[in-house]
Amino acid sequence: MEYRHGGDVYSNQGVFCDYSININPLGMPDFIKNAAIRGIESSSRYPDSRCLRLTERVSSAYGTDPKTLIFGNGAAELIFAVCRAVRPKRAVLLAPSFTEYESALQAVGAECTYFYLKEEQDFGLPIEEYIDFLRQEAPDMIFLCSPSNPVGDMLRPEDVKRIVTFCGEKNIFAVIDECFMELAGADNKASAISLVKNGYRKLMILRAFTKTFAMAGLRLGYGFSADPELLEKMRSSMQPWSVSIPAQEAGYAAFGPEGEEYVKRAVSLIREERRFIENSLPEGAFKKYPSSANYILFRDLTGRAARAFYEYMLRQGILIRCCDDYRGLDGTFYRVCVKKREDNIILEKYIKGYL
Amino acid sequence: MEYRHGGDVYSNQGVFCDYSININPLGMPDFIKNAAIRGIESSSRYPDSRCLRLTERVSSAYGTDPKTLIFGNGAAELIFAVCRAVRPKRAVLLAPSFTEYESALQAVGAECTYFYLKEEQDFGLPIEEYIDFLRQEAPDMIFLCSPSNPVGDMLRPEDVKRIVTFCGEKNIFAVIDECFMELAGADNKASAISLVKNGYRKLMILRAFTKTFAMAGLRLGYGFSADPELLEKMRSSMQPWSVSIPAQEAGYAAFGPEGEEYVKRAVSLIREERRFIENSLPEGAFKKYPSSANYILFRDLTGRAARAFYEYMLRQGILIRCCDDYRGLDGTFYRVCVKKREDNIILEKYIKGYL
Repeated sequence: MEYRHGGDVYSNQGVFCDYSININPLGMPDFIKNAAIRGIESSSRYPDSRCLRLTERVSSAYGTDPKTLIFGNGAAELIFAVCRAVRPKRAVLLAPSFTEYESALQAVGAECTYFYLKEEQDFGLPIEEYIDFLRQEAPDMIFLCSPSNPVGDMLRPEDVKRIVTFCGEKNIFAVIDECFMELAGADNKASAISLVKNGYRKLMILRAFTKTFAMAGLRLGYGFSADPELLEKMRSSMQPWSVSIPAQEAGYAAFGPEGEEYVKRAVSLIREERRFIENSLPEGAFKKYPSSANYILFRDLTGRAARAFYEYMLRQGILIRCCDDYRGLDGTFYRVCVKKREDNIILEKYIKGYL
Repeated sequence: MEYRHGGDVYSNQGVFCDYSININPLGMPDFIKNAAIRGIESSSRYPDSRCLRLTERVSSAYGTDPKTLIFGNGAAELIFAVCRAVRPKRAVLLAPSFTEYESALQAVGAECTYFYLKEEQDFGLPIEEYIDFLRQEAPDMIFLCSPSNPVGDMLRPEDVKRIVTFCGEKNIFAVIDECFMELAGADNKASAISLVKNGYRKLMILRAFTKTFAMAGLRLGYGFSADPELLEKMRSSMQPWSVSIPAQEAGYAAFGPEGEEYVKRAVSLIREERRFIENSLPEGAFKKYPSSANYILFRDLTGRAARAFYEYMLRQGILIRCCDDYRGLDGTFYRVCVKKREDNIILEKYIKGYL
């Protein structure tokens, strides 16, 4: 199986700076690290298979019914589990989008069709066209991501509601992946969680601790759905102890007061540094696509070969994401995450060197 | 979904001593703890989805081809993944046996039939009768566990070979769960891994770090199979990053020289303390079944109600495993793990109090 993701520092020794994964530029905070270490101290026993403490904490933070919550070994596990629970025959995906949706759908034998976002529309989602496409394709399941990956544009709440309402009428199960929403600084009004609160049943919202708290190696994601039968089906397709004790402890700490302050700091840093990186990519040489997220998609307009900018950066010890494995993109598209100023200055220097 | 396992200290507050989970009585050793903590330090990034370092280390320890190895978020994840890969229509399970086999088979819609082990045979496996049963039931898949759980008896290598050979001829996929074999002090000759080395393809051997290194909360299991297509199917049904960085680091440390010495000490402690606990359960009041493992199954012969001994122990703050949810057993059967002498003396005291 081919690995089609960022963050592969394991096959790229000599990389000193990883711009290919979209995690919080502040890195894992001490209160998360310490909570995870406390988790290791008590890891002789099995994890709580129901994540009771964590469920209580997260549902009270969001003001949701605890029964609508499910936790997984990273949001990625929940992507696979929701596909097993829905068992779609046909699914519609956006292109480009996160490749694990396709992998998870293929794992349950679903046939995928693709709604291609247009470069000339900055890869934004044209709602009415999309709904027409769904009407015509009549899938059982769709995946959306807001902010989208790899582009970074955020869906408007009224558009999400329009899509979810349409899906409800047509019996299409919608998954909305909001893993990057907290780092985009969006408040809860931007989230589709309110739709779950309002009882929309053919809907699952995914979120992750991975990116927001820079704990990708610890694995913790969660999801909301107003359909208890769906959650039960997901749980029956997963082992009982999928969330480790260090992950449960880290997640619990993340929803404390320190977590809130840390995310605020990250959001403001990301806003500033995203602008810095955008400014480092000169117009004419690069086309940049508008992002609300902690990463930027851009295209090399210099006319050099596919992957040239990626290879060049790798020679400098910087790993960026070449987007040639995204459906609908090619090797002239790249994605970088937003890091701290000291890193971004180095990035800027090498961008200049490339030109 | 009902929780049908030991170790549920989360709904049993006030328990000071947990005899319900079968983990190494020495507890998590410092070299594992420290490795896991180092893992947390680097958990801002994603785990290596291929577990390359760990694969190299474990395959070299067993002298197996690295291509025959797969890792999971605990052996439990691999139980579910192998069922998804094999997609059996019919499966044969032993009764009693570990309940997750049934859960994983039901999750893929397999119909299970049960070969009931007999109390008067100490729940041992009568090989020829079992093979006759398989011939008659013609399943696609079987699960065996050696040492078995909850009984603790070990299959003889020649019997395993006989069963696996039969399964190969009849196109039955066999999973042999050896999660408790290291703590039983069995050498590699007792293991069915040699059958994988010899190229038997309709076979998967499961092992776990969970019990052997008392790291149930960290989640790490592994499996061997000589069928690369099967392993590929299992991987496609799992997310790419299912093994966390702390778990990979802990697993790597476990296969070092300290790990070997630690397991040796545990095996000798378990042998001695198993005898101590057996002696604490007086003949006449309890029937004990022969165990090679780090736990003992026994039956209350005092004529008291089902679950009486469990409830009594719980009132003393001791959690034991009542076996009434095991197919083929009832509430007069109990399982305790083997712990250290200081705990076992307390257990003995309360056993006396019960009589």
